[in-house]
Amino acid sequence: MTEHVEGGAGRTAGGRRLGRRPGSADTRGQILAAARETFAEKGFDKATVRGIARRAEVDPALVHHYFASKEGMFVAAMELPINPDEVIPALLAGPREEVGERLARFVLTMTSHAQARQPLLALVRTAMTNERMATMIREFLTHALISRVAQALDIPPIRVELAFSQLFGAVLARYVLRLEPIASVEVEELAGHLAPTVQGYLDPAS
Amino acid sequence: MTEHVEGGAGRTAGGRRLGRRPGSADTRGQILAAARETFAEKGFDKATVRGIARRAEVDPALVHHYFASKEGMFVAAMELPINPDEVIPALLAGPREEVGERLARFVLTMTSHAQARQPLLALVRTAMTNERMATMIREFLTHALISRVAQALDIPPIRVELAFSQLFGAVLARYVLRLEPIASVEVEELAGHLAPTVQGYLDPAS
Repeated sequence: MTEHVEGGAGRTAGGRRLGRRPGSADTRGQILAAARETFAEKGFDKATVRGIARRAEVDPALVHHYFASKEGMFVAAMELPINPDEVIPALLAGPREEVGERLARFVLTMTSHAQARQPLLALVRTAMTNERMATMIREFLTHALISRVAQALDIPPIRVELAFSQLFGAVLARYVLRLEPIASVEVEELAGHLAPTVQGYLDPAS
Repeated sequence: MTEHVEGGAGRTAGGRRLGRRPGSADTRGQILAAARETFAEKGFDKATVRGIARRAEVDPALVHHYFASKEGMFVAAMELPINPDEVIPALLAGPREEVGERLARFVLTMTSHAQARQPLLALVRTAMTNERMATMIREFLTHALISRVAQALDIPPIRVELAFSQLFGAVLARYVLRLEPIASVEVEELAGHLAPTVQGYLDPAS
């Protein structure tokens, strides 16, 4: 894990600058460990920065120094390859009638890298075996992904969940079940198959 | 587990009748335990009735007495709720333009029963954590499901896999991640959303 003694990496919009330097090189790791425990125990919604700071035995201001948001802390704690905070606005920014294609291509390209895929699959594995972790993941997905996309596109959340379920199922068929040929076709070919489905779910409600 | 001392339950078309009665009330259980080990070790394709009989220390004819096919033995060994042997022909039998609706409704209705859902989710969990088991499951799915549907509908296997991936993803979103509202809508409503997608993948190749 990278340590950031100075400069507050992981801090984006809204990150505060502190008057003093963080305590030790390990502070960030300490906060992340506390975050993991707290999220697993309380879920995403009920976890608070204050509670995580208390468990890490640091000042809440220090938590804010490292992480701009609870979401950012979750992303770092679970070692997720992307921060929806940053990625979703970019994906939604282009033409509405191509959003399905952008999403399908983005998800397939990202998961084609083992380094990005592994932590995501680890999270799914965890959700399958641990009720509490499933709650934590559901709350994060709802908060960071589903609600945000539904709101931005002005469609009911179930339509975003349907699009998610298609991409989710396809990634698992490709990388966990490794069905052939879905496991070995090029990203572009698979994206071409999935894009119309995703687009159909995300089209403006009629 | 139900024991069948006489009559050879699990034996369907092609099941042989034996000249003598099976050895003990436990023979079927013994065969299933041997089948589980063999499938996990060799995968579905390379496992043989002869090899399973050897491991169970019974005559191969006795295996045939209990199970009509390797597929039927897999279904019983994994305690799967359905036998694709029986279900798929029935699902494919109706009008082609409604096959998506029939499949979506069938999968959602079946998985709405915890007793049917649990062994299926157990299998997915296993596939996520164990490479060998993933191979076993992939081979079974390919042999028992994908190839058969692709052949019957005369479409490329990837289209069946895409349909499968949508239903698979939806079931996981509903029962593992429990995203709302996808987790709590009625089967009919969810089937209504998924049917056009599944139908689109399974329509005759243009």
